[in-house]
Amino acid sequence: MTQRGTLGVAVIGTGRMGADHVRRIDEVISGARVAAVVDLDAERAKRLADGIEGCTAYSDAAAAMAADDVDAVLIASPGPAHEADLLTAFAHDLPVLCEKPLTPDAASALRVLQAEQKLGHRRVQVGFMRRYDAEYMKLKALLDGGSLGRPLMLHNRHRNASSPPGFTSANLINDSVVHEMDVTRWLLDQEITAVTVLRPRPSSNAPEGLADPQFVIFETDGGALVDVEMNVNTGFGYQVKAEAVCERGTARIGEEQSLVTETAGQWGGTIVQDFTERFADAYDREVQAWVDATRRGEVTGPSVWDGYAAAAVCEAGVRALTEGVRVEVEMIERPALYR
Amino acid sequence: MTQRGTLGVAVIGTGRMGADHVRRIDEVISGARVAAVVDLDAERAKRLADGIEGCTAYSDAAAAMAADDVDAVLIASPGPAHEADLLTAFAHDLPVLCEKPLTPDAASALRVLQAEQKLGHRRVQVGFMRRYDAEYMKLKALLDGGSLGRPLMLHNRHRNASSPPGFTSANLINDSVVHEMDVTRWLLDQEITAVTVLRPRPSSNAPEGLADPQFVIFETDGGALVDVEMNVNTGFGYQVKAEAVCERGTARIGEEQSLVTETAGQWGGTIVQDFTERFADAYDREVQAWVDATRRGEVTGPSVWDGYAAAAVCEAGVRALTEGVRVEVEMIERPALYR
Amino acid sequence: MTQRGTLGVAVIGTGRMGADHVRRIDEVISGARVAAVVDLDAERAKRLADGIEGCTAYSDAAAAMAADDVDAVLIASPGPAHEADLLTAFAHDLPVLCEKPLTPDAASALRVLQAEQKLGHRRVQVGFMRRYDAEYMKLKALLDGGSLGRPLMLHNRHRNASSPPGFTSANLINDSVVHEMDVTRWLLDQEITAVTVLRPRPSSNAPEGLADPQFVIFETDGGALVDVEMNVNTGFGYQVKAEAVCERGTARIGEEQSLVTETAGQWGGTIVQDFTERFADAYDREVQAWVDATRRGEVTGPSVWDGYAAAAVCEAGVRALTEGVRVEVEMIERPALYR
Amino acid sequence: MTQRGTLGVAVIGTGRMGADHVRRIDEVISGARVAAVVDLDAERAKRLADGIEGCTAYSDAAAAMAADDVDAVLIASPGPAHEADLLTAFAHDLPVLCEKPLTPDAASALRVLQAEQKLGHRRVQVGFMRRYDAEYMKLKALLDGGSLGRPLMLHNRHRNASSPPGFTSANLINDSVVHEMDVTRWLLDQEITAVTVLRPRPSSNAPEGLADPQFVIFETDGGALVDVEMNVNTGFGYQVKAEAVCERGTARIGEEQSLVTETAGQWGGTIVQDFTERFADAYDREVQAWVDATRRGEVTGPSVWDGYAAAAVCEAGVRALTEGVRVEVEMIERPALYR
Repeated sequence: MTQRGTLGVAVIGTGRMGADHVRRIDEVISGARVAAVVDLDAERAKRLADGIEGCTAYSDAAAAMAADDVDAVLIASPGPAHEADLLTAFAHDLPVLCEKPLTPDAASALRVLQAEQKLGHRRVQVGFMRRYDAEYMKLKALLDGGSLGRPLMLHNRHRNASSPPGFTSANLINDSVVHEMDVTRWLLDQEITAVTVLRPRPSSNAPEGLADPQFVIFETDGGALVDVEMNVNTGFGYQVKAEAVCERGTARIGEEQSLVTETAGQWGGTIVQDFTERFADAYDREVQAWVDATRRGEVTGPSVWDGYAAAAVCEAGVRALTEGVRVEVEMIERPALYR
Repeated sequence: MTQRGTLGVAVIGTGRMGADHVRRIDEVISGARVAAVVDLDAERAKRLADGIEGCTAYSDAAAAMAADDVDAVLIASPGPAHEADLLTAFAHDLPVLCEKPLTPDAASALRVLQAEQKLGHRRVQVGFMRRYDAEYMKLKALLDGGSLGRPLMLHNRHRNASSPPGFTSANLINDSVVHEMDVTRWLLDQEITAVTVLRPRPSSNAPEGLADPQFVIFETDGGALVDVEMNVNTGFGYQVKAEAVCERGTARIGEEQSLVTETAGQWGGTIVQDFTERFADAYDREVQAWVDATRRGEVTGPSVWDGYAAAAVCEAGVRALTEGVRVEVEMIERPALYR
Repeated sequence: MTQRGTLGVAVIGTGRMGADHVRRIDEVISGARVAAVVDLDAERAKRLADGIEGCTAYSDAAAAMAADDVDAVLIASPGPAHEADLLTAFAHDLPVLCEKPLTPDAASALRVLQAEQKLGHRRVQVGFMRRYDAEYMKLKALLDGGSLGRPLMLHNRHRNASSPPGFTSANLINDSVVHEMDVTRWLLDQEITAVTVLRPRPSSNAPEGLADPQFVIFETDGGALVDVEMNVNTGFGYQVKAEAVCERGTARIGEEQSLVTETAGQWGGTIVQDFTERFADAYDREVQAWVDATRRGEVTGPSVWDGYAAAAVCEAGVRALTEGVRVEVEMIERPALYR
Repeated sequence: MTQRGTLGVAVIGTGRMGADHVRRIDEVISGARVAAVVDLDAERAKRLADGIEGCTAYSDAAAAMAADDVDAVLIASPGPAHEADLLTAFAHDLPVLCEKPLTPDAASALRVLQAEQKLGHRRVQVGFMRRYDAEYMKLKALLDGGSLGRPLMLHNRHRNASSPPGFTSANLINDSVVHEMDVTRWLLDQEITAVTVLRPRPSSNAPEGLADPQFVIFETDGGALVDVEMNVNTGFGYQVKAEAVCERGTARIGEEQSLVTETAGQWGGTIVQDFTERFADAYDREVQAWVDATRRGEVTGPSVWDGYAAAAVCEAGVRALTEGVRVEVEMIERPALYR
């Protein structure tokens, strides 16, 4: 790649994810710099900006997006603020990396989709970062290569050491299983048509009233069956595993075996404790891919359509959880822009 | 164990399983001998008996069971013949190892159950041989030990290289998933209360009309959720795997790694091709355990109750498959003899 | 196999190994029974014999071997007594399973070799039981099959949790590495021509004065290089691993992965604590193979030549350890009887 | 890290490694840019420079190092040119990342060492990139943590699919085993005191006359014993593995298990084919660490002392290979600058 000038990025939102992206762009990513940080808390934004050469603090996203030295926007604000920020970015025709969820529900996601269609070209990459994980990328390449034949089933394990305070039964669907929704659609290149949520007797590790674990089943328009063990209070660590069962073989990812010890009557290794450890490289690769594509004048990666589809499947999932029945997913037809 | 005389065993049925048991008792098992072989095909029985010192051929099971040198009976005849053979054995109060299924349906299994109850003591060990597999035994011991806490979910994979001619969609439940039914009940020490069968689009390896693979879900009276990938035309081999997900950890079996090679750009090992290879040791251990217990005057292992329960769950499973709905399992209350 | 009468076995020596073989023949092995037990301690022999129907206690091995109901001999007495017991067995032309070592040194092993040659046919199977371990058997079959090409190197790990009281630096060679000597000769079908013993700084787990661990190197007449990590105070368990590095690939055994758990930040499994756990099946298979071959009138398995070769390599090994130099192995030419 | 201006790097040498570093700094590394490329072949340098904004081509390293926009130097020229380039860099007091080997022999390495001492502060990071591999880093951290106790032995496997044309028996030591020399010194924090090279009968894959494989043994001043299987014509792929055997346990790295498939009677995964695939991340991390440290005004990583020590051990290794004997390593005492 030839050097075409360093990309000036405005990072909107400076919570855990936003602050981490600021650090990433400042220290890890090639070809980009943090030109602006935006937070409603002006003090917080200023403290962050002060540590970075040529970086301006804003408390108003629109002002940041209007600045001359801002070439692109990374949205890491809370979900409910995404729609407004995206529309402002469209108004400036700025390239966007938008953290998931695109928006909190299917209706608002659909409005963003229609706004981007009106713009006439893709501007948004949605932050489904598992697509940038080295193991998922290998699995995707293997499935696409076709040597294993058509996928029949996809088994997923998604485990957290513990759930954050206030995490609800619906959060398991909207915040956690949403990753498997995107992974399913991307790996299989199929849409999800129905969701069922089964509830074993909750773990005694789970807070009172939380339906944890859940066992979630997707059906797809290609006839594949997908199951997800969603388990957010395992106590022992963070794990993401997937196994594709195809007509001529299986393929699985997610067993970490990089350092094996033998000691005190035990062989084995450690289990990572959270997603930042498991997916650090994927986040780096995601943002680098966005910077590279943006500097080439392209938009790649998960689209607004993917964000909308995830929102639609989430809505079906939450209903399936609440009502205890199989729920069909309702979506509009896929617009030409996203084919 | 002290030597208390060699056990004279009558083997009823000399098909694949029966002939294999004859060989096993003759060459592998300590403390037993084949005293009689029974087959409707008298010639076949005679050929087999001729190779074994002191072994008599019969075409009538009742005659064999009446013989003086027969101390115990191994039933390996076709399932529909089991009920009559079991009742005859009860009449002679002979210890029995009965190949699965106990009988072909819940009603006949219930009659056998009632007959054994009338006898007043257990006489039958049912041939659910996975309980004698070294890996399953380790998993059972770990779960019983309690260090992992209560089991929340049990994931199972049951794969065959190819299905035999004439294998029907119901055979996947009755002949294959039946093993997971027993394993579930035994590992968890819980009864199965409902069955659901999901059908992804069939593999193109499967014969026309066969619902293969199937994804079967059990609910248990302890609140556990159990899933079974039943997949009988994988092409690549025979695999049985299980993973228990508990409150404080997981445990899994079924990954064979006894010989690992690195060659031609690949690391890994071979996959066995059928159950005789995977479970040879389990069959040996099952029969040896039966002989040992019988010589001690005891009855251990899977009981007629386990055979009846499997039949009841199978009936629910076939209905769930056929009707596409969740089906609750109907069973009598557990009699005192089997508690 | 047809039943040709049960083999009456005299077990000489009732220490740990002898008593275990008595139990094995009584409870596990098909086609054999314990007809006699022999121990200098007559009380001890009697206590053991009393528990077994038709078993006579002796304090004199020769008397036992002269008994009418003794068809074969299993020698599990201390090594220095083996030569006399073997010669007596030859006098009665009885089949023998002789625990390793054949005899304590190469000179006495050579005398036994010459005595068996005078007898004119093989009568002895030596107790190198690793040849009956399922994993080693797979490795042997793979190497013999030739798909990996010629073996270039063989890496071995041989680890014990702790050494028994009084274990000397020479015991590491004579009692432990002797297994790798036999495994090397058997797997590669080559003779060992030289031995070097390297001594890292001893582990602080090792008793004062014990050269532990040792790193032992064999050269073979086929140009292969073999290394052995001999490590008898690991603290963490018992492990035997081997990796053959061939011209077209590698193959390795010894990683136990039968039950994998994920708990408390760790994935992995347990390590067995001693050889009886690791090689229980190999011992069973060894004795069953000896009984089966004996009943067929054959002698198979490791021969007196193998016992002699091990003794010769051990002598070179101890000199290499003591003198800190590479020592060439001295052996007679292989007699026709053992080709 | 705060932004302190982008580091202008002159890359000297544009062969395979040099060109790859140019690409890396241009596309991957944060905080640096390629300010100059140097090659004796002026056309080649110009072609490379033309693709990069603000990059000047030179055919003279000294001229590049004198340029105003060059803040640091990455030396990727052939080994014999390193000494002159390093001395020029010292003259300009420029930070250097010098690809291995530091220089081709211990005498010239010693001259560089003395020159840097005269400079009075460290300026050079030597390109032993395995220290930046994620797995080696974990192993190092574990050993340093002390939970496994003192390392007794270190087993290494270093395998290539095939050796490049003209590769000599000494190249196996100087170009390949040199990595294990550095890894040994770094992991154990001990110096190597003697080298022995054993030569099994060469693989028939190896070109006529090449001593391949070799089995190399290091002794260290801490009493550890280190073995290296160096095997450059395996045919099947590229592998680097290490196992530390310590007083209280073992730890091993190098088994890649990121994607496991089950197909056609085989389970397993692919083996990478060369070092660029295995160590791509390590190279990225190495250069980023150098850029980050340089921008902070620090020098970290492998030092000129490490480069000198590797050269001294290589010389002993080549003598051990040629003369077939154990050779002691000769080194000066470690200067204060490198303690």
